[in-house]
Amino acid sequence: MRRILNLETTKYLGEKVRVCGWVDSLRHHGGIVFLDLRDRSGILQIVCTPDLVKDTKEECVVEIEGTVQERPIKMVNPEIETGKIELKAEKINILAKAAILPFDLKNLKLSLPKLLDYRPLVLRNPKIKAIFKIQEQVVESFRKTLKDLDFSEFQAPTIVASATEGGAELFLIKYYEYNAYLAQSPQLYKQILVGVFERVFTVTRAYRAEPSITTRHISEYISLDAEMGFINSWEDLMDTCEIAIKNILFDIQKNCQKELKMFDAAIPEMSERVPRLKMREAQKIIFERTGRDNRKEPDLQPEDEKEICQFAKDKYNSEFIFITHYPTKKRPFYTFPDPKDPEYTLSFDLLCRGLEIVTGGQRIHEYEELLKNIKNFGLQPKAFQFYLQTFKYGLPPEGGFCMGGERIVKQLLNLENVREASLFPRDMERIDQRLSLLQKKKKEKKKK
Amino acid sequence: MRRILNLETTKYLGEKVRVCGWVDSLRHHGGIVFLDLRDRSGILQIVCTPDLVKDTKEECVVEIEGTVQERPIKMVNPEIETGKIELKAEKINILAKAAILPFDLKNLKLSLPKLLDYRPLVLRNPKIKAIFKIQEQVVESFRKTLKDLDFSEFQAPTIVASATEGGAELFLIKYYEYNAYLAQSPQLYKQILVGVFERVFTVTRAYRAEPSITTRHISEYISLDAEMGFINSWEDLMDTCEIAIKNILFDIQKNCQKELKMFDAAIPEMSERVPRLKMREAQKIIFERTGRDNRKEPDLQPEDEKEICQFAKDKYNSEFIFITHYPTKKRPFYTFPDPKDPEYTLSFDLLCRGLEIVTGGQRIHEYEELLKNIKNFGLQPKAFQFYLQTFKYGLPPEGGFCMGGERIVKQLLNLENVREASLFPRDMERIDQRLSLLQKKKKEKKKK
Repeated sequence: MRRILNLETTKYLGEKVRVCGWVDSLRHHGGIVFLDLRDRSGILQIVCTPDLVKDTKEECVVEIEGTVQERPIKMVNPEIETGKIELKAEKINILAKAAILPFDLKNLKLSLPKLLDYRPLVLRNPKIKAIFKIQEQVVESFRKTLKDLDFSEFQAPTIVASATEGGAELFLIKYYEYNAYLAQSPQLYKQILVGVFERVFTVTRAYRAEPSITTRHISEYISLDAEMGFINSWEDLMDTCEIAIKNILFDIQKNCQKELKMFDAAIPEMSERVPRLKMREAQKIIFERTGRDNRKEPDLQPEDEKEICQFAKDKYNSEFIFITHYPTKKRPFYTFPDPKDPEYTLSFDLLCRGLEIVTGGQRIHEYEELLKNIKNFGLQPKAFQFYLQTFKYGLPPEGGFCMGGERIVKQLLNLENVREASLFPRDMERIDQRLSLLQKKKKEKKKK
Repeated sequence: MRRILNLETTKYLGEKVRVCGWVDSLRHHGGIVFLDLRDRSGILQIVCTPDLVKDTKEECVVEIEGTVQERPIKMVNPEIETGKIELKAEKINILAKAAILPFDLKNLKLSLPKLLDYRPLVLRNPKIKAIFKIQEQVVESFRKTLKDLDFSEFQAPTIVASATEGGAELFLIKYYEYNAYLAQSPQLYKQILVGVFERVFTVTRAYRAEPSITTRHISEYISLDAEMGFINSWEDLMDTCEIAIKNILFDIQKNCQKELKMFDAAIPEMSERVPRLKMREAQKIIFERTGRDNRKEPDLQPEDEKEICQFAKDKYNSEFIFITHYPTKKRPFYTFPDPKDPEYTLSFDLLCRGLEIVTGGQRIHEYEELLKNIKNFGLQPKAFQFYLQTFKYGLPPEGGFCMGGERIVKQLLNLENVREASLFPRDMERIDQRLSLLQKKKKEKKKK
């Protein structure tokens, strides 16, 4: 007999069907046992005699044959989609056994490290699983928006030959007889491809050897990257970013009501046009609101990001705000300086609910300018020969942005830690398991 | 004035418009210059006076204002979509200059290494660019097919803690104070997620430290991965793989005629059902056809793959063939042994035009069996603790497959080398530039 999904059983009232899934729960009521069967479509209540379930436990994988019947009226459960019916089991076959669960999977009360130690099991909890339905939707909406705007999708390489953006925080790879690194971003490749396709995007992995543990950083993250040529102004980039965010919010509102409800989360408020504020203006406002004087700092601190988001909420009823014009020295070498004040750049961050979720800006597209800036930043032009071809042979004014895939999900669902928004988060202590349990730390090389 | 695309000009006959793009070519005809302008939509012929183009060269980026007019009848070019019209230029503004090209970009006659040295420029050649239109379509069709089959998309991690599949050919990462590796495949994560979503897929990067240079291998490749639970038989996996391939071929046939024509490539023939042959049967046929006796070899050699594809073409008019039942010892520890003959596995490769493009199979889903096999393969169960939770707490019969993104494009377009199907191919000698030009080789550590 062909397997049908739990959700499909509603169409087979009075008929005999076969369903498969995991035993979500077992409730004994005298001579009857209620088994909740979980499959990818949802939960189905199975009515069994005790002998049928004598070998089953929670998380056992079973196939069940039986007849679909209406539930008695007082047993109807409006909370689930199959709540008006149940399956009277005739045969249960165990496809895979399960060990006794180490904790209550339906009522998780574990610390984050424990949740991550048991990730393969914990992901089966519907609320945890819901996070990744949201993630999937974010990625899909991003892609759809950019395709609709005539961007081409590309697959970015992740092994790079040199520390292209000049930073520390790079992972070293032993690459045959050479050294290589994990890409901090697909930035240089996006720009190269503007020379080919004008408008490109990618959903890729990016890596930061972040030497501290925070709630905002992971070592490997999902980067939603876009880059576009022939911009009229760097504000085109913020406009495109706004469209992408708006569509993500719209699609989640439309397709993920159940998931939002589990987190008691509302889609963040977005004003008709997201407010745009220069970093120096933001610092001034923060000073006026809190007395905290960071007006000479080259960047916003986490507490500043929270405060300026509160300001945007208070003044514009917007849970998003663009902060623009970061100092030239704090942005990578390819960032376009503001012609009106070259100490600052035509760059932006988009903050949502107190956290940066997007960063972007216009790039230097003139060959001589770029070459000069590479030298100004103390970098070796030789390491950029490949990339520089793009500019040597003509690139239009262009720019782009990247969104942190986990961060946007974290902010949408008000999660406490970005790790919760990653299926398998990596940080300085963990790759799936805690590294200290798997490996001894490398010994410091003894100096002669 | 708003910029319009070259292709849109056909709707503005007699009107004044602004277009932007790269100077594809300049042809002087006495007092007139014909400038071919290239943008993401195609080519547009611009009629200019010589003074308007005196500072322009090929690959310069320009914006042009002018009036759309019909071409004289004898000048109509049916080869291009804007072939009936042209733009009479009134104003040309150079947005970015270009250096003199180091070679003829429209008529590439370079060796592959040179083509790769100049990749950012070479990608602008329409035939090279077409390869990545095909790649984009392959990825899109794969995703669409699997979504339609109710698979969930996930983002796979690429940093892993141990040599999970037991092989050599791994890249070592210095991961904070520990060692880590680049994932050879998202295999273990796919399986974990079958326990959560039943059916999953991902388009990700995978890595092989392939110590030799062949036309079939690159160090970083696109892996199109799918995994599904509750299979009735391992043949379900081949059926799903066939659907995915069929849809890819259908979509390319439908959407990429222009690109196929550039390569003079026809979509490979696919019989109603792709022939399925055991490896030992294939070896016997090869022996009978060629006298080459590889009947005791544990795998097919490249020449065997070519021969058996020729056989499938001759006998079934199919340019695809599944080879099944590879020896247990040659497949990874998680591969399901054939209950009828445990020396062989329920595994398969899909060959196309002489090359393996997909590999897949059923996996061991029972905890005790898997644990035993990990030990049989000389691996440490401790390193698999995380993964093993999936099986300890119930996983249905399942399996999956992965397609090599570059390989499938290579075979569709009959490219000679898989590097041609990668935007930025990495191999033991190259990451964008030749590594020997960038770095000195690491010195062998001196032994005391």
